[in-house]
Amino acid sequence: MEKKSFVNLHYKPNKNDIIATYRIESKLGLEKAAIEVAAESSIGTWTKLSTLNQKTFNKLAPQIFYINKKKKIVDIAYPIENFELGNIPQLLSALTGNIFSMKAIDNLRLENLSLSTKYINSFQGPYYGINGVRKLMNIYKRPIIGSIIKPKVGLRSKQHAKLAYDVWINGVDVVKDDENLTDMSFNKFKTRVLEVMKLKNKAEKETRKKKIHVFNITAPMDTMLERAKFVKKMGGKCVMVDLVSVGLDNVQVLRQANLGLIIHGHRAGHSMFTRNPRHGMSMLVIAKLARLAGIDQLHTGTVVGKMDGSAEEVIEINKSLKEDFGINKVLRENWGKIKPTLPIASGGLYPGLTKKLIDILGNDLIINYGGGIHGHPNGSIAGARACYQSMELAIDKKIKIDKNKFKEYLDAQKYWKNKK
Amino acid sequence: MEKKSFVNLHYKPNKNDIIATYRIESKLGLEKAAIEVAAESSIGTWTKLSTLNQKTFNKLAPQIFYINKKKKIVDIAYPIENFELGNIPQLLSALTGNIFSMKAIDNLRLENLSLSTKYINSFQGPYYGINGVRKLMNIYKRPIIGSIIKPKVGLRSKQHAKLAYDVWINGVDVVKDDENLTDMSFNKFKTRVLEVMKLKNKAEKETRKKKIHVFNITAPMDTMLERAKFVKKMGGKCVMVDLVSVGLDNVQVLRQANLGLIIHGHRAGHSMFTRNPRHGMSMLVIAKLARLAGIDQLHTGTVVGKMDGSAEEVIEINKSLKEDFGINKVLRENWGKIKPTLPIASGGLYPGLTKKLIDILGNDLIINYGGGIHGHPNGSIAGARACYQSMELAIDKKIKIDKNKFKEYLDAQKYWKNKK
Repeated sequence: MEKKSFVNLHYKPNKNDIIATYRIESKLGLEKAAIEVAAESSIGTWTKLSTLNQKTFNKLAPQIFYINKKKKIVDIAYPIENFELGNIPQLLSALTGNIFSMKAIDNLRLENLSLSTKYINSFQGPYYGINGVRKLMNIYKRPIIGSIIKPKVGLRSKQHAKLAYDVWINGVDVVKDDENLTDMSFNKFKTRVLEVMKLKNKAEKETRKKKIHVFNITAPMDTMLERAKFVKKMGGKCVMVDLVSVGLDNVQVLRQANLGLIIHGHRAGHSMFTRNPRHGMSMLVIAKLARLAGIDQLHTGTVVGKMDGSAEEVIEINKSLKEDFGINKVLRENWGKIKPTLPIASGGLYPGLTKKLIDILGNDLIINYGGGIHGHPNGSIAGARACYQSMELAIDKKIKIDKNKFKEYLDAQKYWKNKK
Repeated sequence: MEKKSFVNLHYKPNKNDIIATYRIESKLGLEKAAIEVAAESSIGTWTKLSTLNQKTFNKLAPQIFYINKKKKIVDIAYPIENFELGNIPQLLSALTGNIFSMKAIDNLRLENLSLSTKYINSFQGPYYGINGVRKLMNIYKRPIIGSIIKPKVGLRSKQHAKLAYDVWINGVDVVKDDENLTDMSFNKFKTRVLEVMKLKNKAEKETRKKKIHVFNITAPMDTMLERAKFVKKMGGKCVMVDLVSVGLDNVQVLRQANLGLIIHGHRAGHSMFTRNPRHGMSMLVIAKLARLAGIDQLHTGTVVGKMDGSAEEVIEINKSLKEDFGINKVLRENWGKIKPTLPIASGGLYPGLTKKLIDILGNDLIINYGGGIHGHPNGSIAGARACYQSMELAIDKKIKIDKNKFKEYLDAQKYWKNKK
């Protein structure tokens, strides 16, 4: 029988293979360390096994087919039989599992995943996608303006709803719960939904525009589904999950329930394992898996705001959410039937940053302002107007800044310039 | 109105507060950085809010009550109203969420959590706990001997079951699926359960001892529950979840289903965010939350095996799984009704390490051998015997090593000594 090994630089990935790109630091040297990683993430362990025969090895052994010593990067192709289709946790247990614990490895980072069409097709992807969200909102040629209700927690349901109404009728399209606001003693989930929906309908009538509220249903799965169904029953159109806290598997389950709700993906906590450039995994990988699981709109970074993330990284992630073909150098991912995911910029944004943000990330974006609206020197209404104005100015460079028409924007500019 | 701030070194934690211990690195200096962390994880953001009044602030603002500049450590007490009871993802979104992304912070690690009785009582904890597992297995005074089937993936259901049988009748108490083995094309989940249960019954009859198989049900929640119910229906007693891959919320849901199954917690992937001593969170925090969610037995480290983790750390974690009161310096956690969780040592273990392992971690332990059994020079049966023998020798120091009685152990010693 042909004797395969883990390393084969002439290997051409099979069309069904899943390719993982790892950056590895190890005293063993790159090639030996890559073999340890390939083994522990598939069929091997720390010692030779009497129960592993050559036939099984040949069928399942991942192939290390690219080694870049300078960048400490390797590409490993995993036969699809290593994975259960439609099961993201199983993929994570293999490719982002034990390998991060091995004493033999000092640092390890999963930089990219190139998923094969067979694997991709075992998922549903977003229900709405970018076009669906835009159609629902009737907003086609500009970024969507969002506001996070602030403080994150503390307002009662009625106060929350009133604040949402105030910003909706002053230019905001989407209002959202923050990541730690769920069913609180002072702001019960169902009461919030009821209060918000009343004023959402009022705001829609008055503005003749579609308004969306993003309800945070982050909770154990049964509760999450129950809350999503309640939102749907009350006429809501969108729910949010903190996808790191609940897991991408629960996004899958929520998506499979086919409720016709936009799934808004908050990524609180990702930086525990994405921030270190030497260890963990990249936000790019999370973004791809989130799209696969069914996230319609995903927080991917602001570049210019309070959160970490370079322009280069955020641009690459946003691109990957929209593309039909993967950006891995092996261009074999066909996302065919899977709709694209709309990127969200959120965290530390205020009117003075809008133009720069759009210049870097483009129009296909939800821009969320929290402190940027509710921290405006003249209050939340002025803040909402200022943010909308900043967007108008950013997308139409011919507009002249009339002092009356753009008063709130100019006030915001003055206020935050002095603070910086 | 009294004007509270985030820092109050005279603050005495309220009995319901949840106390988080963070290690922080920031250019801002420790106190200022701690304020940023306290604010972003509760009611604040990067700028002053017009919508946050003093009353809300006083009610919800976390109190930084201990600052240790040398160790870069702070203790922050969060009023319980910041949290939804019974909802682990919500706690994670607050305490291990956005704060890890802030540009203002260079490195951040959640070192410990001191949960209050009110919070603890909103969870069920383990169904069996240590005593329940020991009673079920009728093993009281020694570590439980486990074997992971190796290779991790690749064996067919029948081969898997046969191998389980071979090691069961040679001293192994518990046989388990590995973390990446779920429902595979070559080894379907249900077929595996059927094949294994047949031979488990046979092994029990022949040995007159209770044998357990740990079936890996790691998958999206609906599939996971379906598989757990199938295991129960077929007479199985234990299921495994990769708790990082599926999320602790799904452990909660599985526990709430009250199936009477032991829940075995594999932690593949934790090292993405626990390994760096400067960033992420500690395994201790995961262990506490896993116990809360309902894990009966949890992988916590081997000290001597292939995986990272110091003796000091693993001892502290194992102690916390068994104690009624928290080991945080504020001794106010009452785990009263929550049963203790049995620690599992797994990863790179072989007979020669057993004594050292038990000397460090004690008897209340499941010891899993994978390569240590299936990599024995004379095969898996010899490997199973060798591991059982190594346990006998470790717990009874008076035994003389008879060359015939302990043949497999001595063979293993010779083999792995030469390999090291």
